[in-house]
Amino acid sequence: MSNAVRAAIIGATGYGGAEVIRLLQAHPFVQITSVISTSSAGTPLADHFPHLQEIVVDILDELNVELIAGKADVVFLATPAGVSAELSPKLLAAGLKVIDISGDLRLKSREDYEKWYKRTAAPEAALEQAVYGLAEVFGDEVKGSELIANPGCYPTATLLGLIPAVKAGWIDPSTIIIDAKSGVSGAGRGVGLGTHYAEVNENFSAYKVNKHQHIPEIEQALSRVAGHPVVTTFTTHLVPMTRGIMSTMYATVIGEHSTEAFTELYRQFYEGRKFVRVRNSGKMPATKEVSGSNYCDIGFAVDERTGRVTIVSVIDNVVKGAAGQAIQNLNLMMGWDETTGLLFAPVYP
Amino acid sequence: MSNAVRAAIIGATGYGGAEVIRLLQAHPFVQITSVISTSSAGTPLADHFPHLQEIVVDILDELNVELIAGKADVVFLATPAGVSAELSPKLLAAGLKVIDISGDLRLKSREDYEKWYKRTAAPEAALEQAVYGLAEVFGDEVKGSELIANPGCYPTATLLGLIPAVKAGWIDPSTIIIDAKSGVSGAGRGVGLGTHYAEVNENFSAYKVNKHQHIPEIEQALSRVAGHPVVTTFTTHLVPMTRGIMSTMYATVIGEHSTEAFTELYRQFYEGRKFVRVRNSGKMPATKEVSGSNYCDIGFAVDERTGRVTIVSVIDNVVKGAAGQAIQNLNLMMGWDETTGLLFAPVYP
Amino acid sequence: MSNAVRAAIIGATGYGGAEVIRLLQAHPFVQITSVISTSSAGTPLADHFPHLQEIVVDILDELNVELIAGKADVVFLATPAGVSAELSPKLLAAGLKVIDISGDLRLKSREDYEKWYKRTAAPEAALEQAVYGLAEVFGDEVKGSELIANPGCYPTATLLGLIPAVKAGWIDPSTIIIDAKSGVSGAGRGVGLGTHYAEVNENFSAYKVNKHQHIPEIEQALSRVAGHPVVTTFTTHLVPMTRGIMSTMYATVIGEHSTEAFTELYRQFYEGRKFVRVRNSGKMPATKEVSGSNYCDIGFAVDERTGRVTIVSVIDNVVKGAAGQAIQNLNLMMGWDETTGLLFAPVYP
Amino acid sequence: MSNAVRAAIIGATGYGGAEVIRLLQAHPFVQITSVISTSSAGTPLADHFPHLQEIVVDILDELNVELIAGKADVVFLATPAGVSAELSPKLLAAGLKVIDISGDLRLKSREDYEKWYKRTAAPEAALEQAVYGLAEVFGDEVKGSELIANPGCYPTATLLGLIPAVKAGWIDPSTIIIDAKSGVSGAGRGVGLGTHYAEVNENFSAYKVNKHQHIPEIEQALSRVAGHPVVTTFTTHLVPMTRGIMSTMYATVIGEHSTEAFTELYRQFYEGRKFVRVRNSGKMPATKEVSGSNYCDIGFAVDERTGRVTIVSVIDNVVKGAAGQAIQNLNLMMGWDETTGLLFAPVYP
Repeated sequence: MSNAVRAAIIGATGYGGAEVIRLLQAHPFVQITSVISTSSAGTPLADHFPHLQEIVVDILDELNVELIAGKADVVFLATPAGVSAELSPKLLAAGLKVIDISGDLRLKSREDYEKWYKRTAAPEAALEQAVYGLAEVFGDEVKGSELIANPGCYPTATLLGLIPAVKAGWIDPSTIIIDAKSGVSGAGRGVGLGTHYAEVNENFSAYKVNKHQHIPEIEQALSRVAGHPVVTTFTTHLVPMTRGIMSTMYATVIGEHSTEAFTELYRQFYEGRKFVRVRNSGKMPATKEVSGSNYCDIGFAVDERTGRVTIVSVIDNVVKGAAGQAIQNLNLMMGWDETTGLLFAPVYP
Repeated sequence: MSNAVRAAIIGATGYGGAEVIRLLQAHPFVQITSVISTSSAGTPLADHFPHLQEIVVDILDELNVELIAGKADVVFLATPAGVSAELSPKLLAAGLKVIDISGDLRLKSREDYEKWYKRTAAPEAALEQAVYGLAEVFGDEVKGSELIANPGCYPTATLLGLIPAVKAGWIDPSTIIIDAKSGVSGAGRGVGLGTHYAEVNENFSAYKVNKHQHIPEIEQALSRVAGHPVVTTFTTHLVPMTRGIMSTMYATVIGEHSTEAFTELYRQFYEGRKFVRVRNSGKMPATKEVSGSNYCDIGFAVDERTGRVTIVSVIDNVVKGAAGQAIQNLNLMMGWDETTGLLFAPVYP
Repeated sequence: MSNAVRAAIIGATGYGGAEVIRLLQAHPFVQITSVISTSSAGTPLADHFPHLQEIVVDILDELNVELIAGKADVVFLATPAGVSAELSPKLLAAGLKVIDISGDLRLKSREDYEKWYKRTAAPEAALEQAVYGLAEVFGDEVKGSELIANPGCYPTATLLGLIPAVKAGWIDPSTIIIDAKSGVSGAGRGVGLGTHYAEVNENFSAYKVNKHQHIPEIEQALSRVAGHPVVTTFTTHLVPMTRGIMSTMYATVIGEHSTEAFTELYRQFYEGRKFVRVRNSGKMPATKEVSGSNYCDIGFAVDERTGRVTIVSVIDNVVKGAAGQAIQNLNLMMGWDETTGLLFAPVYP
Repeated sequence: MSNAVRAAIIGATGYGGAEVIRLLQAHPFVQITSVISTSSAGTPLADHFPHLQEIVVDILDELNVELIAGKADVVFLATPAGVSAELSPKLLAAGLKVIDISGDLRLKSREDYEKWYKRTAAPEAALEQAVYGLAEVFGDEVKGSELIANPGCYPTATLLGLIPAVKAGWIDPSTIIIDAKSGVSGAGRGVGLGTHYAEVNENFSAYKVNKHQHIPEIEQALSRVAGHPVVTTFTTHLVPMTRGIMSTMYATVIGEHSTEAFTELYRQFYEGRKFVRVRNSGKMPATKEVSGSNYCDIGFAVDERTGRVTIVSVIDNVVKGAAGQAIQNLNLMMGWDETTGLLFAPVYP
């Protein structure tokens, strides 16, 4: 791969970083040249992730912009909140393309960021430059961009499930209720009682009700599509499984539209986009049916008794909700087919 | 226990029956005198449930009304749909008290039953006689009754979470959306691809969307409490865990009521009822915190941005959602304290 | 319960302590009068364990020997290694009975303790006074004792499965190989990558191979029973489940003994001891069949091809492997029936 | 892929067949031309496996040798016991290469097959022709063969873990004890109480003790390598997870060989074979570290106290234990690099 694009991954000892590595290792046009960890520089990656033994370049690099610029063409940031706000401008200045998987650059409003994330927002310039990389909706803006704010996991599942209906005016945005569920990997690799096996296993819990930082991200995109401010009810739950997100979404239907009609509307909206699979009318997707893959599967049920539609959207939070969509965005940035290196089937069972 | 009430359990090789056995075995005033199975009569119960070896009367009886009448005072029916519709009148005629854990006698409208269950409804007389045993709400009617229609698992969690607010007029019934999740034991012990470990594990799925037979049961009770017909959106999901139900419920608040106010309203409503525990303001319960017990725990979050309240209610579907509430109803029927034999703590972790 | 024995639990915010609370709460002769935590004194227990809300005395006491002596007759120590070595003598001096669930007082050899636990051993006097409370084997010594070293979880399952055969001289102790598996609750409530849900779920791993601190405990008891030093191979594995231990044990049979003969031998050995259930010949127990209960179930398979017997023994590590056996020991200490308050059925499924 | 090798998969609605499809779909030199099911011919594959929607040729073909011969060059048999014994000769006669993932052609002794499988063995000629495809050990025989008996899942993990030590004479074969554990997918997609979620979840059980049909397969290979008959103790356990096998193996060491020496011995034995990863000295692999991949990871611990070595070997039972090794064998048969299409990283977490 002498002409391969060279990639560096910052935050390689976390789940998001490890997944970027797993996926890039199978990408035909990319070569991983640096795996980076601030806390563990100098140690072998395989000490942290034995599953990667003998698979990729092994010793973790320190976080040094010059070093990265000498080794890589593109950088994936799989870092905790606050890091990329500061780091992205420097990486861009050094001539690197940047794909930020953290939430730092997603909200255009600094005020919103500071309210929901409870920390200082990124500089205005970075926020302006960053393109929100919901590939199937805003992919045209991704092409040619140098800085991508990769969407959050919940927003990806939710927005792909809602946007066609909102855009078509088939549902009343003010009635949208989103009941979302996620596997535990979404909480990251940091330790805490909330991710302790014996606390999570055989348990189902709601968390951050009305307080999740993905709420403004969802509303920002829905408002843009609707053309007016949209406020939603959004609840997150923790499922005793490792991977997977389901958003179950409810809204009042405007006009008369059957389940079949919704199915057709979405198929047209996503025509030619391989990673969104609209299920046959009346069939609902399950999270495992996209596990390990970059697919987002969507199903519908219109209820004549209540006048509401129920929309179910599922993704693998680590792939389509993070690393996979990041690479899909890289493909778009580079002018490659968006599916390059990502057309592997879900792992089932 | 010479004066003990003698109990027979029909359907002892299913999960509901086994749980009645587990709980009654620790009840101070009841003795199990017959465990009954139509398909496995004559075989040892421990062949089907090794965990019960050396614990209860072992050989399974056949289903014979006279035999039961000679051995027992009360009968628990943990039977598939259709059995108790036919069997209950005979058991009553033989002088037995009957607690039906199946869905056959819950719906007062034969039409509704036939529409949602897709089978012939029970005789009008049985339906009229049956008392809907949602203990904390309709317990007064249970006292002195001979025939109990024990509530379904989803309706129990849902109704205990909604009724105080509906009764108080604090939420608009027409806006209620119920997003419910259940562990796999709710599907019973019958085998099928839908309960195959490799299909369910690491998976989260929606099922019977807008078609679940618990919808009319929930609407019947809500309509009764509201004083007018209530129609709801109700979605069921399968969680990769064995026990537990959570109902996450959404409704538009009528008037100004804070999370604290909801907490207080519910504490007053359930005062003196030990099995409903209202969480401190803003805290949400998790299913594991009631696992193995007869508790129903409830929490609230009012969102000023949307004007909606989110109510979370959890139970153990096999206990409070089936066997435990059945015994609570027996306690009420017999004039005992409703908590007799049921005040054990949840099993955690 | 005016004449109830008053119990204090030290380490109430851990899993062992919480299980002592759960079980004592249902004990007819015991009243919990103090729940103690060094790190969280003054806070409500329900803040740490919401499942115990409204169930027991709530505010956590500090660890103060005088305070405990004024409130309690017996103390359960569910504390990390090192605590009870120091604390037990003081509690005994204050006139309290002490049941130590930690490993500090189990090994009679201070040298062994220091080699395997890698910390200073308890004073000689405490070690001499402590009775090793493997109830079904050494229960006679427990009666009248003031200080119990409650057996470890792995040793309980393993020793109950091996001792009758070793004592009868039916197996060659030098050939014993123990392949043990445990649920994650055995690791306690402390957080770490090793108990992170996403690391443990869908994973099966071996740990501390040949290095587990339960090895000398097992060998000490086997040597005592065999009458000569016994050295064993013992491997521990982590199972993606919360509760349960299985020891699969292999040994060369001495003489001709069939599976049936082993079954009979064990039934005679454990005659009258309700918590050991020997399975019918050829049937193997599963961990779930004892979950939540104080039972230990054992099965056998003699293989004529190899001349070896395979013995499978299962317990709930938190009950029979910790809190349940501790209360069984309290019953023996007090002269009560050993099953008092413990005869509840396993929770299945 | 005009020059692609054309592949047919018989048994496409089972887990083994689905995994062959998943892996071949990413293979650069192979094109799936027919997916076959006797029971579901004519229906879309995506009705059975929604995760494959829009990914491969969809309508299931009937099982017809002529049809297959016209469409394919190679056939994968992912069929129940008994099918390939009869079918393989016909497929070979039609000019197809055959890779049999079932157990029908693995045992050279028809007597052994009939004793352990309890059904009629395959014809002598087929057994003679079939090459036992344990790729890293007998790969040379695979090259140029037309008929492969793909090894069983347990034998693959076990034999890769034992053969180097047996061949080197470092362990005494008569002392080998194999304690094996498998995820539930190994039981296939057929429904039954033994794979019911509520029975398996939070449970750990032993099954088919001394009776598993993989025993003669393991002994056949060990005997061949040792040069004399080897009899082993082999126990299988069911782990509450979907994928993964661990074999924990015990044997008495002959001579003085440290953990480091074993590590080195195995590294030399498997030099150049990418799919066996020997862990650094003293590190033990976990099943999740190979999940979804074709790797087999191995670790060692020699215990000076007992003179035994403990060897831990892990694979993904559906990949290296079935579909992955089958494709590895196809690669060898075709003269391609054995890693072609299989060098993807494990899916973690």
